Amino acid sequence: MTKGERLYEGKAKIVYITDDPDLLLIHFKDDATAFNGQKKGTISDKGVLNARISAALFRYLAEHGVANHFVDLPSEREMVARRLSIVPLEVVVRNVAAGSLAKRLGLAEGTRLARTVLEFYYKRDDLGDPLVNEYHIRALDLATPEEVAQLAATSLRVNDLLAAHLKPRRLELIDFKLEFGRTRDGQILLGDEISPDTCRFWDTETGERLDKDRFRRDLGGVEEAYQEVWRRIAG
Amino acid sequence: MTKGERLYEGKAKIVYITDDPDLLLIHFKDDATAFNGQKKGTISDKGVLNARISAALFRYLAEHGVANHFVDLPSEREMVARRLSIVPLEVVVRNVAAGSLAKRLGLAEGTRLARTVLEFYYKRDDLGDPLVNEYHIRALDLATPEEVAQLAATSLRVNDLLAAHLKPRRLELIDFKLEFGRTRDGQILLGDEISPDTCRFWDTETGERLDKDRFRRDLGGVEEAYQEVWRRIAG
Repeated sequence: MTKGERLYEGKAKIVYITDDPDLLLIHFKDDATAFNGQKKGTISDKGVLNARISAALFRYLAEHGVANHFVDLPSEREMVARRLSIVPLEVVVRNVAAGSLAKRLGLAEGTRLARTVLEFYYKRDDLGDPLVNEYHIRALDLATPEEVAQLAATSLRVNDLLAAHLKPRRLELIDFKLEFGRTRDGQILLGDEISPDTCRFWDTETGERLDKDRFRRDLGGVEEAYQEVWRRIAG
Repeated sequence: MTKGERLYEGKAKIVYITDDPDLLLIHFKDDATAFNGQKKGTISDKGVLNARISAALFRYLAEHGVANHFVDLPSEREMVARRLSIVPLEVVVRNVAAGSLAKRLGLAEGTRLARTVLEFYYKRDDLGDPLVNEYHIRALDLATPEEVAQLAATSLRVNDLLAAHLKPRRLELIDFKLEFGRTRDGQILLGDEISPDTCRFWDTETGERLDKDRFRRDLGGVEEAYQEVWRRIAG
């Protein structure tokens, strides 16, 4: 497989085509952004750690029946993945109120939710990725009702699997964001990454934040947190 | 029935208890607010017109099987209504993109939606009435899944009934907000009001706005618009 032209550069990743039309090469950058790009910085080795963490979690999910785009990790920052046409939705699953949810619903940060919350956001940077419901999704033709049901069911299953996997590793899964895409034959696969950039992980005992909130909120120890998550997942 | 103590004063209405524990008296004020109370004013005779318009539309809906709190209109600003314990949700139904939806989804004001959109907002002035989905509603225990399904089905039925009723009256129903409440025996009834304060009505031919947007956006002719809506609904 040969790396081809750059297809797309996002905030944290660069995506290259390859000589296989069904495969992409995803390069994980150290660049960090927050608050819809208003805050920018670099987290040393983030790309390497997020590639490793994502690869490990994608492998684990595939072993447990959650089809995803991960294929291989041929170098420390580069992931080979199935080429998907992205569904323009972010699916967020929340077990504990934190970040925007806590603020929006007037809940204290750290409040355990009586029920798991699932949210769809419309992937539109220019609109600040607004929260949408199933009616908006239909009106904008972003996904079919069957696809929406599949995204919801898969995301809740990922929540159960990841929470169970991470708890013995002393990581509490507070919330996370998933993205999905369609293969050329219309199959929906989990895509993007699963990392401290896209999940909130809190130490199960101390409640210490081991995720991008350390960067967002200038808490210090950002690199160390990403390394610690990798240590616990690899261990 | 005797008017009793003031139970609650809202932005546009004052609610009094009566000597009948199942009935309330709702006084419609001329006060107008917009943008979650940031803009304030008075619209002459608004209370009288909104009471009349609401009474007419509640009667029409009741005749078509939509149970609601309306009982009588004993004076020009006072409505007798069934006493409800309010469900803390606003249900918004939209046929055409306008206001916050147009802005949030990046649609041009006036775009007909490919599908009717239904939205739930959490009634919390201090939080700016945030958009919520069915998972938030469950996590916050605002309504049961059965109640949510009933609110959605009733609201879509109200949309069909009102749109059909208003079209021959040269009023296009762009969007509207409903509130619901529970009677003492647990029945859910449509409550609040149905008026140019809570609906967007556009003239079917000219597209002229005949609703609170004239106040929100300083378009002038505010009183005349409310009078015109009443004339068309009464006629």
